Formats: sequence, C-alpha cells, structure tokens
Amino acid sequence: MPTDPTVSTPTSAAHAAPTADFTVLLDRLSARLPADALRTDSEALAAHARDAAPFSEAGIPAVVTLPHNAEQVAHILRTAYELGVPVVPQGARTGLAGAANAIDGCIVLSTARMDQILEIDPANRLVRCEPGVITKHLNDAVAAHGLTYPPDPASWERCTIGGNIATGAGGICCVKYGVTADYVLGLDLVLPDGRRMRTGRDTAKGVAGYDLTRLIVGSEGTLAVVVGATLALRPARPAALALLAQFPSLTAAGDAVAAITAAGHTPSALELIDRATSQAVADHGHGLLRPGSAATLIVESDTADPASDLHAMELLCKEAGADHVHAASTPEESRQVIEARRLVSPALGAFAATLGGKPTAFIEDVAVPRSELPKFIGTIEEIAHRNRLRIFTLGHAGDGNLHPTVVFDESDPEEFRRAENAYDEIMAAGLALGGTSTGEHGIGTLKRDWLTRELDPASLELQRGLKRLFDPRNLLNPGKVVEA
Amino acid sequence: MPTDPTVSTPTSAAHAAPTADFTVLLDRLSARLPADALRTDSEALAAHARDAAPFSEAGIPAVVTLPHNAEQVAHILRTAYELGVPVVPQGARTGLAGAANAIDGCIVLSTARMDQILEIDPANRLVRCEPGVITKHLNDAVAAHGLTYPPDPASWERCTIGGNIATGAGGICCVKYGVTADYVLGLDLVLPDGRRMRTGRDTAKGVAGYDLTRLIVGSEGTLAVVVGATLALRPARPAALALLAQFPSLTAAGDAVAAITAAGHTPSALELIDRATSQAVADHGHGLLRPGSAATLIVESDTADPASDLHAMELLCKEAGADHVHAASTPEESRQVIEARRLVSPALGAFAATLGGKPTAFIEDVAVPRSELPKFIGTIEEIAHRNRLRIFTLGHAGDGNLHPTVVFDESDPEEFRRAENAYDEIMAAGLALGGTSTGEHGIGTLKRDWLTRELDPASLELQRGLKRLFDPRNLLNPGKVVEA
Repeated sequence: MPTDPTVSTPTSAAHAAPTADFTVLLDRLSARLPADALRTDSEALAAHARDAAPFSEAGIPAVVTLPHNAEQVAHILRTAYELGVPVVPQGARTGLAGAANAIDGCIVLSTARMDQILEIDPANRLVRCEPGVITKHLNDAVAAHGLTYPPDPASWERCTIGGNIATGAGGICCVKYGVTADYVLGLDLVLPDGRRMRTGRDTAKGVAGYDLTRLIVGSEGTLAVVVGATLALRPARPAALALLAQFPSLTAAGDAVAAITAAGHTPSALELIDRATSQAVADHGHGLLRPGSAATLIVESDTADPASDLHAMELLCKEAGADHVHAASTPEESRQVIEARRLVSPALGAFAATLGGKPTAFIEDVAVPRSELPKFIGTIEEIAHRNRLRIFTLGHAGDGNLHPTVVFDESDPEEFRRAENAYDEIMAAGLALGGTSTGEHGIGTLKRDWLTRELDPASLELQRGLKRLFDPRNLLNPGKVVEA
Repeated sequence: MPTDPTVSTPTSAAHAAPTADFTVLLDRLSARLPADALRTDSEALAAHARDAAPFSEAGIPAVVTLPHNAEQVAHILRTAYELGVPVVPQGARTGLAGAANAIDGCIVLSTARMDQILEIDPANRLVRCEPGVITKHLNDAVAAHGLTYPPDPASWERCTIGGNIATGAGGICCVKYGVTADYVLGLDLVLPDGRRMRTGRDTAKGVAGYDLTRLIVGSEGTLAVVVGATLALRPARPAALALLAQFPSLTAAGDAVAAITAAGHTPSALELIDRATSQAVADHGHGLLRPGSAATLIVESDTADPASDLHAMELLCKEAGADHVHAASTPEESRQVIEARRLVSPALGAFAATLGGKPTAFIEDVAVPRSELPKFIGTIEEIAHRNRLRIFTLGHAGDGNLHPTVVFDESDPEEFRRAENAYDEIMAAGLALGGTSTGEHGIGTLKRDWLTRELDPASLELQRGLKRLFDPRNLLNPGKVVEA
C-alpha cells in the first residue's frame, strides 16, 4: 500500500493537474480494478516514469494501472476525468520522443496486459487485436496463415501495436510497404471522459465521414486510448536478397539512390550508413564492410525475381561509382549483408564504451526529400566537425528519413551543450531542406518546440483546437504533441 | 449583369444562410476578381447547380466564381465569411453523392480554371499541382517521366484532382494500388475565413502533429478549399494481362475471389459483374461474354510475369467452378476483356432506353468485407425481385466495394417509390454485413442519414465538432457530410 498521502505536485504549469486526494483516487480506481491492475510501489512508479528518449522531461506517476480490458480502461479514464487527474497511456515504452513519459502525479495507463489477438481473418486479410500485442507476436501469428503485417520499427520484438499506432511507427521496409498508418482500418477507443468510440471499418475501402482513424494514428495518446485495432494484412513477403555497396563519396551514394529510384525499382530496404558508422561497423568486425568508405548502401529486393532485380541495382551502384559491392546470392548471404545494418547499434555501443565519463547516444529522426540526402548528410558531417562531436548517421535512404546519432559524454557539461547545439543545428538544416522534424519517432515532449516551427500558425491553431475538441479538460497525456 | 436584386432564400433551415444584398456581394467579389471569374447568367447558374448524383437536393447559386489562383480563392472565401454567404466548392461535378450541389443563394467556387501542373519531381516521385487539373491530364504528364498516379475513378478523363481529394476517390486499380488518400502528401488550403494553410510535407514519411492532410481528404469541401496538392507517384505500371471468367453461381464466383486472395495474388483489377449486368453486356454485343451466366469476374495482373500469374488465377477460377474462361495472351486481347467492364455503362443505357417513361439509373456504392460479397449480391438479387426492379450489380470484388444500379422509370411514382425502397434495403443489408454506406462515392447530401446510422454517437458528435472547429460560421458547403 502507498505511503504517499497525496498526489505529487506537477513539475510545470504546462502539465498542471488539479491535485486530488490520493486515497480517494486509489479507492475510486480499485473499486473496479483487480489488485494486480493497480500498482503504487516505488519500483513500478520508477519503471513507468519514461520511455526510451534520453534527456526528455519526465515526472513520477501517482499510480500505475495495468488494465486487462476495455471496461477497465474506461473506468480509469472516467475516474481520472471526474477527479481531474492526468492520464499518460503507455505501451512498451520503447518510444524515442518522450511521448510516453509520465508527468508528476499522473495515472499511468499501460495497455501491456491487453495482449490478445482476437481474430485473424485470412479471407479479408485483416486481424483484430488488443493494443498490448507485441508487434513480433502479431507477425508470428499471422505468418501461420501466409500473411504479414509489414511495419517493422527497430523495436519490433518488444514494442506493442498500441504504441505503434500512437506513434505512427515506421521501420525499414516502409520504403516499399508503407508505415503503420497505412495498415490501420479501424480502432476501438476510449475517449478522455471514459466513453467508448469506434472509428473506421472492416472493409478494404470506405469514405464515410471525416477520417478519425487517421487522426488518432500518430496522436501519441493525446486524443483517446486505443483499446482495439483492426489492421490490414498482406500476403507473406517473398524471400529477399540483399546487397551492400560502398562509395568513395556521399554524392556517389546519393546518385545510386537516385538511379535506383529513376529506374523504377522499389527495394524492400534501402538503407544508408555514413562514413563514421561504416567505420564503426567495420571496426566491430563485420567482414563484408571495407573501412575508409564515405558511405555504404544496403539494398534488399523481395520481388518475384530478386536476383535479377538485385543485379540491375548492383550495376546502378557501380555506375554511380561504388568501389566495393557484395551482392548476396543466397538467403544466408543476405543475412550477412543485413547484419551490417543490425550491427550499427552494438558498434555504436562499443564506440561509446571507449569514451570517458557517462557515454550517451542521442538519436535524431529527420526526414528530407530523398534528393536532398547527400546535401543533408554533408551538412551533418560539417555540424559534427564544427561542434567537435562524433555523429553517426544512418537511416532509410529510400524514404529520405535519417537518424543522425550523437554519441557523447553526458557527464561533461560543455560536451552536453555542444551535443544539444548540434541536435538543434541538424533539425534546422533538415527543415531548411524542405524536410520534417520527425519522420517516424514523433513529437512527444522532445520536439514540441520544433513542431511550432514546422507548422504554420493556422495549422498550429487547428491542432490545438483538435486537442481541445477531444480532450476539453486537457487530461489525456497533456503537454505532448501540442499544448492545449 | 444580374437582374435578381437579392440572394435567394435558402431551401431549408439546415442550410440557412444570412441573406446578403446581392449588389454588395457582387461588388465585393468583383473588386479582386477579373470579369471572367464571376458569372451570374442563368446558364452558368444552372450548369453549376449540381453534380452527377440523381435525386439529390440542389439549389440555385447566386453567383458562380471561377478563380484563377489561390489569392482569388482566398478573396472569395473572405468575402463570403464577412457577408455570411455560404460557399459550395466544385471540381468537375462528376461526383455521385450530391456533395458539390449548390444551395440556394450560395457562391459556387469552381476550381476548374486552376489547372496547372506546377512541378513534376521524378527524383522524389512527387508532383505538385493545382486542384483543377484533370486526373487523366496529370497521368499523361507524369507518364512522360516513367511515372504514374494510380487512382482511376470511372470519371478519370473528366474529373479533377481537387474533386478526387474532396471525395477521397477510388477506382478499379485501388485493389492493388490504393485510393486517392494514399497519394496525398500535402495540401495547400484556404480556410473558411480566407486564411491560407499548408498541411503535410514533401517527404516520403512524416509524423509531425495530427494528420490534418488525411482529415481534409474525403471531407467534401466542408472544412477547407484545396488550392494545391503534393501527390506521391509510382513507377509506371508494367504491361497488364486480363482474363474473364464466368460462373454458374454467385457462390462459385465468390469462391474464386477467396481462392485468389488466399493464394496471395494481388491482381491490379478484380471486378465482378452479376447475372443481370453480364446479360446486358452480352446483349450489347460483347463477343467474349456468354449469356446466361450467374456472375462474371474480370481479373487483371500487372506483375513482372503477368502471364504466369494470370494462368495461376485462371486455374483457381476453374477450380472454383468457372464454366467459361478466356485469358488474354496479348495486350490487345486484354483490351477486349477489359472492354466488357467498360461496356457496362452503355449496356445499361441501352437497357434503360427500352423502358418507357423517363428511364434513370440510381448508382449505389456500398462496401462489405470481401468474404461477404456472395451473400450481399444474393441479397441484392432478392431485393430486386421483391421490389419488381432491375438492379444491375457490378463492382470492385477485390475490395468488397459494389455499385448496385437500379434502372427504372422515374416518371412512374410507384416505381420511383420501389426504387427508393430498394436503395434503402441495399444500404441496410450492406451495413448489417459489417459494411460501410460508402466505399468511394462519399456522403454528400444523399447519405447524411445513413452516416448517422453508421457512426456511433460519440463519433458523430466529434465529426460535428470537427466541422465547427474548421468552419465555426457553417458557411463552407453547409449541409454536406454532417450537420454542424
């Protein structure tokens, strides 16, 4: 049982919630929740305080709820509404923008226990599930029916469908198969006042009324809580083959991406790794990567004839100036190629371990028009140089979506300041090239200020109006995306 | 010059607009519009009174405006806002739900003259254009760059991109390539008070803020006027091959659709024609169609190896019970197959001409889960029989989206009543099967009541709130989609 007699004071006016008597809150919640759905121990409160975004503001929740079904979610939201307590929905907390971060004194509402796949319908190529289903588990289940749910965020083995919907998650194969939003047909929701609502449809097509489904996707739990989803599926993807091409210059790699696009190819992965990252992966022992390269492309094809399409793209890479190309001819060789992409994270970890102090990685997420990639990466290298930082840039070249990652010693205040400065400069450079401040990670708390720079005043006003329309008391994940 | 001294009285309280002095309105509009952008002659007023939806309510506009650019659109909306005059945006008026129908005393705002393609960007596979560009013209222009804009509504040779966006238009190849909404990256808009706003982005991916772009797509000109669009393109489609398969029963045709889906095929067209329509097309002289068939499927494949995929689907049709299959082996033979689909409209026209009185066609648009198609078509046949009507059903079987078409003598009040009754019964049957009241034609004025039956109360309340948020004075296409 809790010892804290009151709900904590909010950290800032922006997140201000009327304080409520903690005992009343707990009594009201527990009236319709089983004991295992309600936690107030300090371990649970700390564990649910934040997602995976470093340096994002986060508070300590008053209580963590883990409802088992939609009725319990409705009860939690109704209670919060009546008592004026803010609610922060959470999935697996793998997000990278702070959108799932607790605010002081809030109710955390984790949908992790609502993890049932309710129906797989191969005839209509759709699946109905609860929000807490892990993305990989969903894919495993539909694979048994010869189907696939394509969106593949990096955290797909841990993240949940509800979190994917809340953030509008992307991934590597989006370049061919689209993002989470493209697969959400309908949603079961609980509104901030506890009412249930259904959006969308079970049909492949439909234009009945304004598209509330798409409004909820990517809204980061600020408009409603997803308690069920109807998702479109696709036939299982054919076996893929991959190649790895290294270039003496960024321009050459950019030319290869442009040539692949211009020739009408749609690879199932088109990933770019910059000089620093290529070097780190080579240093980490990936046998196929030659050190000293300015840029590496990883290209995957899962067409009906991947060998022939891969060969065509290999020639385009060579014509663009690639000085080292390795094209897989078997699935096993393809796995080795793709391994270079998977090794980025451990390679950066190994690099970080060589730094003194408290090494940290600051992962950016900016998308620019595909044609601006070489210029953008060049600018990032210049920003790294000027700020005396190591910035590793990799990302989804086919989508123009990059993740420049600043690895630095967070215990050094001066280096911290330079890292923050570089982060701001990268964002500004991306916007100046016609880009967006977030390709797939979201706004959360990290990028609220950038959102106000990206949107025009009328759009920002309407975004705030939307928040007020759905959540007039500003209790559902307040302070994320836009201020009400 | 106009002789009518005042703006007409609105037809109903729902559409009530404050009357304004007509001379003042005209003076204000003409202050910043060239003479050719302002018409008040009775010919223009009549021509712009309605779209292609029969039996939908429509009024007579006070004035028709044909602005040349966004500044003129903003001037028209600002003027209307200040004087309290309703505005009805129009594209090519090929819509089938009455969404572009004038209301008495309104300003019609036609975007037909804003027909410039502003930029084709092959490197980023996108095009920027004005709303009045005809869909076919856009496709012809991008084809020169080896690209295509897939959405292909039946009216694609006449309809405009702005109208496609306003209605969320579909088409035949949506089953593989998606609908209009899937191609809209960003929009330039004018809000009801005349302010400009930009939504979306130029990048392939992006999740910055709530998705206002998707909210506008399909909103039928009730939230804002589209003055520019950034659309995604795809590589040109490979050459396609088509087959035609006829079945002794609806169930057999449904089984074929299910088998094609289950085998993982994604045809670029999967069209179904019922018994009555097959007969009408055969009677109209299409040589490949045998009379007396319960259902005809037209299947098109544009994969890398269409002959092989078509052959596999041919076998599946035969296994499902097809008693007549004709698979094309050349593009010319494919055109003959597809011609059976194109002949539906003239064949129904020829049938209508055999009716006495004033023959009319009432085109429905209902989508059901794909697996419910045979049951739905059987129900439609039963409804036709019971109401003593000829109903021709055809549609996009791969999407579960059907267009049952009642052909009847509108001059016979009793037959009219039976046609209306059949229409209502078809809609109710579609919803009962888990369907939606509109797959691709929209709500307009025709289906407002059905929308309120399809949506739950909370959703309807939010839809109305959205309308009020964007258009607090209820002046932009009032009475369409939802009542404010």
